[in-house]
Amino acid sequence: MANTDSVNVRVLSLNCWGIRYLSKHCPQRYAMIGDMLCREEHDIVLLQEVWSEKDYLSLKRKLACSHPHSNYFKSGVIGSGLAIFSKHRIHDTFLFRYSLNGYPYMAHHGDWFGGKAVGMAILNIGSLTANVYLTHLHAEYCRDKDLYLPHRVVQAWELQQFIRHTSAGADVVILGGDLNMHPEDLGNRLLRSYTGLRDCYLETAKFDGCEDGMTLIADNPFINKKELFPFEKGIRIDYILFKGSSKADVYCDFMSTTKGSVPDHPFPYSDHEALTVGLRLETHTSTETGRDRQSKNKDSAAGKLAELVDIVTEARTEVKVGLHCAESMRYTAKRTGVMGLALLFLELAIATVPWLALGAEQPFPRTSFYLLAALCFAILLTTFLLYIFYTIELKSLQGAEDQMRLAVGSLQEKLRGFPLAQPHNAQQRPPKAHKPSAFDPEE
Amino acid sequence: MANTDSVNVRVLSLNCWGIRYLSKHCPQRYAMIGDMLCREEHDIVLLQEVWSEKDYLSLKRKLACSHPHSNYFKSGVIGSGLAIFSKHRIHDTFLFRYSLNGYPYMAHHGDWFGGKAVGMAILNIGSLTANVYLTHLHAEYCRDKDLYLPHRVVQAWELQQFIRHTSAGADVVILGGDLNMHPEDLGNRLLRSYTGLRDCYLETAKFDGCEDGMTLIADNPFINKKELFPFEKGIRIDYILFKGSSKADVYCDFMSTTKGSVPDHPFPYSDHEALTVGLRLETHTSTETGRDRQSKNKDSAAGKLAELVDIVTEARTEVKVGLHCAESMRYTAKRTGVMGLALLFLELAIATVPWLALGAEQPFPRTSFYLLAALCFAILLTTFLLYIFYTIELKSLQGAEDQMRLAVGSLQEKLRGFPLAQPHNAQQRPPKAHKPSAFDPEE
Repeated sequence: MANTDSVNVRVLSLNCWGIRYLSKHCPQRYAMIGDMLCREEHDIVLLQEVWSEKDYLSLKRKLACSHPHSNYFKSGVIGSGLAIFSKHRIHDTFLFRYSLNGYPYMAHHGDWFGGKAVGMAILNIGSLTANVYLTHLHAEYCRDKDLYLPHRVVQAWELQQFIRHTSAGADVVILGGDLNMHPEDLGNRLLRSYTGLRDCYLETAKFDGCEDGMTLIADNPFINKKELFPFEKGIRIDYILFKGSSKADVYCDFMSTTKGSVPDHPFPYSDHEALTVGLRLETHTSTETGRDRQSKNKDSAAGKLAELVDIVTEARTEVKVGLHCAESMRYTAKRTGVMGLALLFLELAIATVPWLALGAEQPFPRTSFYLLAALCFAILLTTFLLYIFYTIELKSLQGAEDQMRLAVGSLQEKLRGFPLAQPHNAQQRPPKAHKPSAFDPEE
Repeated sequence: MANTDSVNVRVLSLNCWGIRYLSKHCPQRYAMIGDMLCREEHDIVLLQEVWSEKDYLSLKRKLACSHPHSNYFKSGVIGSGLAIFSKHRIHDTFLFRYSLNGYPYMAHHGDWFGGKAVGMAILNIGSLTANVYLTHLHAEYCRDKDLYLPHRVVQAWELQQFIRHTSAGADVVILGGDLNMHPEDLGNRLLRSYTGLRDCYLETAKFDGCEDGMTLIADNPFINKKELFPFEKGIRIDYILFKGSSKADVYCDFMSTTKGSVPDHPFPYSDHEALTVGLRLETHTSTETGRDRQSKNKDSAAGKLAELVDIVTEARTEVKVGLHCAESMRYTAKRTGVMGLALLFLELAIATVPWLALGAEQPFPRTSFYLLAALCFAILLTTFLLYIFYTIELKSLQGAEDQMRLAVGSLQEKLRGFPLAQPHNAQQRPPKAHKPSAFDPEE
């Protein structure tokens, strides 16, 4: 039996819906949020959609005593909206901006201007090093015809990569935020399977909150019920996930959510519900660790690998759909640009003919001539900018697709190390063969 | 005495100067590079400025036997230019795009379109996990008045963050590439001090190459000697850096560079010289590790920390200069935009007055009217785009500055754990105090 040493950590995550002048009752809600955070004294507070730095700074002043350490992650045109407040000292921070995040011309959706990213803060909790991640993925505006699905899948891909690669030195990993994905959506499965992060809602010993852990609910007065259709009661898109390490086990003792209203206040904190979880971190002092125990179960590891291969393959398909879309958009931009150029030449030709025929009357009314020329230039400029934008999008999608292909190859290679898992695989190879295998991951 | 197990790894780094149709003798040079790589069979090949994916693919075909594993990192409009070829299987890759990378309107410098980034590839070499990083930072066009210095410092900052945070699980770390910085430049010191990476040129047991390890030399026929001024013989801006871990020690047995020409060929591989290093990886099997040995020397650790505080403070100053510049550029864009708008209103007013005075003759010749209006719109559009661009630049610079401030605070906190290092520091605190300290890192 290992000796353990236990620490309790309370974490809150809330999407604040903090668009100054546009979000309803924004200053009042920030005041309510500040009061609540001061009173509740969570160890770690993860806020999203704090779009204005001024609001962050006023929260920071208010929480100076309860949460002396904080960080606001700056990115994009108006910021990432991500803020972390902590009782424990933040030793280091790092920001990863997603390579794809919607389209600048979809200004009414506004995601592009937000510069979506994942922020990391490294905290020492007792003797443990905790990597705390905070993110907000691209919103889903229409589930049936979700234009942004490939972008969100790439964001989920980059999120899992970032967490996986930066958390090797961490004893505890905590991720909180608005993932804008339902629990079983592709991106969510990708994230959980690849990183091994566990969902507080599914793991908690006690739960007090909305039905099914929903965080965007019909009972919230700021919610337009039509937008929830066909999920009339609500959806679960905000999460707190966690995992331990060889040095510490993590347990979720309780979880609660707000329920669409706040006692003694006329409206809730936000259009999203706030999540609070109680995590118990148990430090090992023996060498028999969770990771060791896990590695003993080879069959289940092989099963998980096989599942991961399927999920990455599904994500790759989704990215390919995005690639196809981006290619056709770029082609359209190019074609429109060429038409604009042709129109400009035609106009110049028509205007030049009488000029060459010395003295013949100009067939073009001047006003129309200039207006048409201005239109041509506008078309050329717009299509040029769009062409560059779609090229960048294509490169990012291709890059993600390449990485996924490589990952599938590498996972399949590992799977070959589990003979039971793939009984029909004729050619068995050791897991660390360095020569190219018969399976070509770069097909 | 620890038991050791030794592996030799040969690494090459080369900036290929591969701009199709613009770089001199591009196809011939790629053919020469491919032949050399096939013949030399380095374990790991790190190429920069492979701007065309077609060139990457033709190299890949040529090196299919000698280097079966490869990856091309896609980013920006024309790509990151980064390609890795390896004898050892690449298990995973990850790309971090720098938040700042010059200006799109400086098209003649072209860096912005390249989407500069750092690529990571995870390889298994024997029983060791090697994290191999490959990067190319923003070029320096004028050393006396270097417009891009804040951008390059932020890139170096992000590079060290990326390496530090992603290499915790690595047994061996190798970084190669064109850093566009002299050996003692701020960004280089920041990178080496923070990550603990060591410079092959300074560590090698044997060296055969250009004087002072220079990689951009006057003897190279593609080099314009004037651009090297005042460093007439050349400069050292390409590097291979490395470090070991608690599991393996790394030694540089030899290093060589090309010397501005290639035997039996009319011109060299590139305008940069190629670097080749021989690294020896020695695996520990005992628990007495390099890291343990290092931690025994507390005095030197404190000295290094103090030096790091100075370097980060210097970098912060440089970023502040960049912030000031970006602010004034944004202000100029805003003011010009407002003037364009005022001009447009003035024009409309002048045109409207006679129209209101029914029938009075239009004082504006039509042509001038439309041309002036078009000019106003062009000014408005350009200044709007510039305003958005500078806002993004400002956010990135502010973000880096915030992170640096936090880092300095955290480093000073650690320094307090070394009483000898700061004899004049009146208030001594334990290194892991979680309450806010008297020193305010957020000043």
